[in-house]
Amino acid sequence: MDEPGPYLLRPIGVVRSTLRAVSDAPNQAAQGAPPALIEIDPAFADALRRIEPGDELIVLTWLHLADREVRETHPMGDTSIPLTGVFRTRSPDRPNPIGIHRVTVKALDGPTSLRVDALEAIDGTPVVDLKVAMRQP
Amino acid sequence: MDEPGPYLLRPIGVVRSTLRAVSDAPNQAAQGAPPALIEIDPAFADALRRIEPGDELIVLTWLHLADREVRETHPMGDTSIPLTGVFRTRSPDRPNPIGIHRVTVKALDGPTSLRVDALEAIDGTPVVDLKVAMRQP
Repeated sequence: MDEPGPYLLRPIGVVRSTLRAVSDAPNQAAQGAPPALIEIDPAFADALRRIEPGDELIVLTWLHLADREVRETHPMGDTSIPLTGVFRTRSPDRPNPIGIHRVTVKALDGPTSLRVDALEAIDGTPVVDLKVAMRQP
Repeated sequence: MDEPGPYLLRPIGVVRSTLRAVSDAPNQAAQGAPPALIEIDPAFADALRRIEPGDELIVLTWLHLADREVRETHPMGDTSIPLTGVFRTRSPDRPNPIGIHRVTVKALDGPTSLRVDALEAIDGTPVVDLKVAMRQP
């Protein structure tokens, strides 16, 4: 296929969390992710204007420890589920390992640090985008 | 800040749509996006295994016409809304212009082409990831 690209993804910040290892990270925030700090590079401070406590945001991360060569997996490690293409799963292992996380901003710890309620990403995970959350998706 | 990266994002496919220009694209799918075809590179065919009509997917795109230097904007072009950091908007103009779209698979047009119900991205937009949709987010 005649695709364009590749494109250069530049991290805008990083996750600070008590989660230190992938084995500690729950599959989804609802399964007990701890609060976290999102530290944004001060070079992007203007892009945070009007973010305030109570905001619901979509955080996109780069799951830097993922295996980009994986194409099929048993979802949630459950071998009773048939082998499934990674594009029909939420596995971090995929060609472009972008994580999607919905968070609520609890506080601003300085001008470029956002304290959020629950985030299922380990300490040091690069952040690549923030968006205001909406019903779709 | 001492961030890692940058990372190389390799498109996995492309959007085929009757939307030809950004000026035709609605802000969100609910505002009348047309059906579209998602053509996946056959090299990633295995990663589509078990995707079938009726599946709800999150499609991540690379909004290749976006301005990556924009940091603040009036949401939806409405100048009565105060200037807002792009990280608190859904503007395509942002440092890493990744689009998030929720779609329903209507049909498979061959092994690596997914016909979907509504997608607010113009023809030729690169696709960088697919995930199964869940309530969160």
